[in-house]
Amino acid sequence: MDSPVVNVQYGVYPIIQSSEKPERTLIPVKALDPSIRETIVWLRGRVHTIRSKGKQCFFVLRQQSYTIQCLLSVSDSVDKSMLKFVSGISRESLVDVEGIVKKAPKPVESCSQSEVEISVHKVFVVSESEARLPLQIEDASRPEGGGDENGPDILVNQDTRLDNRVIDLRTPTNLAIFRIESGLCQLFRETLSREGFIEIHTPKIIAAASEGGANVFEVSYFKGKAYLAQSPQLYKQMAIAADFDRVFTIGAVFRAEDSNTHRHMTEFVGVDLEMAFNYHYHEVLDVLDRLFVAIFKGLSILYKEEIEIVRRQYHSEPFKFLEPSLRLDFPEVVQLLREAGVEMDDEDDLTTANEKLLGKLIKAKYDTDFFIVDKFPFKIRPFYTMPDPTNSKYSNSYDFFMRGEEIMSGAQRVHDPKLLMKQIAAHGIDPQKMQSYIDAFRFGCPPHAGGGIGLERVTMLFLGLDNIRKVSLFPRDPKRLTP
Amino acid sequence: MDSPVVNVQYGVYPIIQSSEKPERTLIPVKALDPSIRETIVWLRGRVHTIRSKGKQCFFVLRQQSYTIQCLLSVSDSVDKSMLKFVSGISRESLVDVEGIVKKAPKPVESCSQSEVEISVHKVFVVSESEARLPLQIEDASRPEGGGDENGPDILVNQDTRLDNRVIDLRTPTNLAIFRIESGLCQLFRETLSREGFIEIHTPKIIAAASEGGANVFEVSYFKGKAYLAQSPQLYKQMAIAADFDRVFTIGAVFRAEDSNTHRHMTEFVGVDLEMAFNYHYHEVLDVLDRLFVAIFKGLSILYKEEIEIVRRQYHSEPFKFLEPSLRLDFPEVVQLLREAGVEMDDEDDLTTANEKLLGKLIKAKYDTDFFIVDKFPFKIRPFYTMPDPTNSKYSNSYDFFMRGEEIMSGAQRVHDPKLLMKQIAAHGIDPQKMQSYIDAFRFGCPPHAGGGIGLERVTMLFLGLDNIRKVSLFPRDPKRLTP
Repeated sequence: MDSPVVNVQYGVYPIIQSSEKPERTLIPVKALDPSIRETIVWLRGRVHTIRSKGKQCFFVLRQQSYTIQCLLSVSDSVDKSMLKFVSGISRESLVDVEGIVKKAPKPVESCSQSEVEISVHKVFVVSESEARLPLQIEDASRPEGGGDENGPDILVNQDTRLDNRVIDLRTPTNLAIFRIESGLCQLFRETLSREGFIEIHTPKIIAAASEGGANVFEVSYFKGKAYLAQSPQLYKQMAIAADFDRVFTIGAVFRAEDSNTHRHMTEFVGVDLEMAFNYHYHEVLDVLDRLFVAIFKGLSILYKEEIEIVRRQYHSEPFKFLEPSLRLDFPEVVQLLREAGVEMDDEDDLTTANEKLLGKLIKAKYDTDFFIVDKFPFKIRPFYTMPDPTNSKYSNSYDFFMRGEEIMSGAQRVHDPKLLMKQIAAHGIDPQKMQSYIDAFRFGCPPHAGGGIGLERVTMLFLGLDNIRKVSLFPRDPKRLTP
Repeated sequence: MDSPVVNVQYGVYPIIQSSEKPERTLIPVKALDPSIRETIVWLRGRVHTIRSKGKQCFFVLRQQSYTIQCLLSVSDSVDKSMLKFVSGISRESLVDVEGIVKKAPKPVESCSQSEVEISVHKVFVVSESEARLPLQIEDASRPEGGGDENGPDILVNQDTRLDNRVIDLRTPTNLAIFRIESGLCQLFRETLSREGFIEIHTPKIIAAASEGGANVFEVSYFKGKAYLAQSPQLYKQMAIAADFDRVFTIGAVFRAEDSNTHRHMTEFVGVDLEMAFNYHYHEVLDVLDRLFVAIFKGLSILYKEEIEIVRRQYHSEPFKFLEPSLRLDFPEVVQLLREAGVEMDDEDDLTTANEKLLGKLIKAKYDTDFFIVDKFPFKIRPFYTMPDPTNSKYSNSYDFFMRGEEIMSGAQRVHDPKLLMKQIAAHGIDPQKMQSYIDAFRFGCPPHAGGGIGLERVTMLFLGLDNIRKVSLFPRDPKRLTP
């Protein structure tokens, strides 16, 4: 198919170079149903599957998650050479098809538009795919765990998927995942905008390694050095000290951590907020609580179809949450774990295993996959955490959990420069390195609290997926920098 | 004021550590007007100015852009020690004030709430500012060009502002600028969401220097090297090849360019989109046209007050635009410039000076600050640009201009791998370095076009500001990495 062959009924278009603006209307595949039967339509889609049999050629046209069966039969208006041409089109090629919408004699189970099919009489190739695909969309779409009785249980491994991400992303599940992730950001922003937040953008290139200096990437900056920000926290707090009152920011954050686990990446999307409050950080915790409930509700309603598509391939229990969310204080959590046989001190942090167990205990007791743990021990939290006013063993800090994994760590921050310096010294951190952080609070700063989530981690856990790479468009980890 | 002194009427609060949840309601300063006169209210704000005179102390309380005059007089309920305490509070300190709303005997011209004042009887310091401020809010708020007749013409220079950004950002103008910038992103997203776009997030750390390799920052990546992405373009295009159809993305982009001008930064916020089309890239240009009109209209209506605040300090002509936007083909632009005496060849690029001149010519002729130039010469555009189908001297590419500066460069991209390889070779680029880019188009790709803006540049030009650092929260340039 090297040389463009175009006649009136079939062929390969020259490269679409914007040479014309035809009057033709392309009908979306998802709009095809019996209400427009016997209509002549033009469609554009990919050749999903194709097979010929005698004087007929069947092919399925795919447009995102929607599919329609197309039938080409040798007849008065379709000659053998056309049948031969169409039969030779490689899968994944983009084609323009003209045909008549017909009621399907029996439901086409394998297509999303099962009640109709297209009797085709024109086919033109818009953009040809190479014949040899690095992975098959059908294999990449197959339910995990042998859910498909009709075919051999070929699954595509994760590295093959990621190496060929452009094709892998075309599966209905992947298209659905990234619609859901896009929706999550939108719900986050809309909910906070209604609460009076404004969006800010914080620098990613910073002069000094923040938060202690471990796990930061170094950048060559002209004749000097710089670093990639691990979080927007200092800048969110500076915005609060600058009277922005309530801010959120969505942007890349970087962790030079040599971890190759299901939930670590070296770059991810930080979704962060910070808020001044009047007298108690629970004013902020209440906003956060409403925010997550709004996100979970919004996703469940607006992305019902996409969630179902994902769950057909990757089985998971529906995500459960309460309104308002369940909140427990850290000592209550320790108590629950001890009752389940865990040995831990009052001020021990939660291990990953204990988080998992806690998730199960709470699911069993309260029937929720989402909960908030408030009042973490002071000694296991970062230096900028405000201690509890009455019991110095604890602090005004909280973690949020989904399906037994921590998704957000937040706190009331120390807004007083003297107390901050005291805590920096107590943590053995060089105050010189923290000078611009401390300076931000020298000219009056309202009490404030906040937190941040990793977009990918929340999407992964909401959908009950097993690997964060499934929800990152082009994931980065210590071993992967491409594509 | 080192030791907290709290009595029933005045003092310094202990650090607000969330020890109580008082029933008290704080009234926003902007809600203060004569309709609530004689009411007792609690307010929180910063001490903007303060002076005492005999048995009275006047201070202005500021809350973001809103200000109210407060008056404390020695009386039966206010003793001299309270007057002394309050008179000693440093400017920029945050205070809680209780008082009675009074109708002002004459309008308080210097305050936003000019019809009322507060007769104060309780004052507590929430967060104290150091007495010595690195810059004065009043100086930093003064109109440029000697617009203020009442005071000495002290302006704050840009480096002093940026070195002390937390205080600088508190001016009404700066608060307004960042509300407008937040609004711009929101309008961009809302308009495109209505047009069927979804949001994606693209990696900032990349394996190879994209687009030729000049001006990229190098990152130490574990035992190897990586680079910071100069644009999300490859990834937007991969999303299109992956059937995402219409995508936008907002995120940091990086340019290691050693330029110290009013409009260059090493890191800025890229606001990008990419869209598949059917037959002609003008389908995309029409979307872009509607997008910019929606943004300009939205800003003009929703942020009218903020725009006025900015223009009071930094004078500019209101931004003018047409609906639909003015579109000219490149040869028409050359003609206009030649008529104005410019000597240039048909295929010469526009110099910065010629862009400025063109902006003036078009403003005079069409009364618009915004226009689109289509059909740029092929030879001055990047290798991935689709040539014009009929005249190979030109291309399917366009630039958008605001007030005589280019704000967006975009094009139909080459979606055919063979043509792409040919153009890569013709530009003398090593095809090996472009392999993952070329690979994205090997398995069928719809024709597509797109473009991207720098958020800060568009905000700057919309507001007619003279320096991009005014619209970046924490700007980065070759000489500035802090705060």
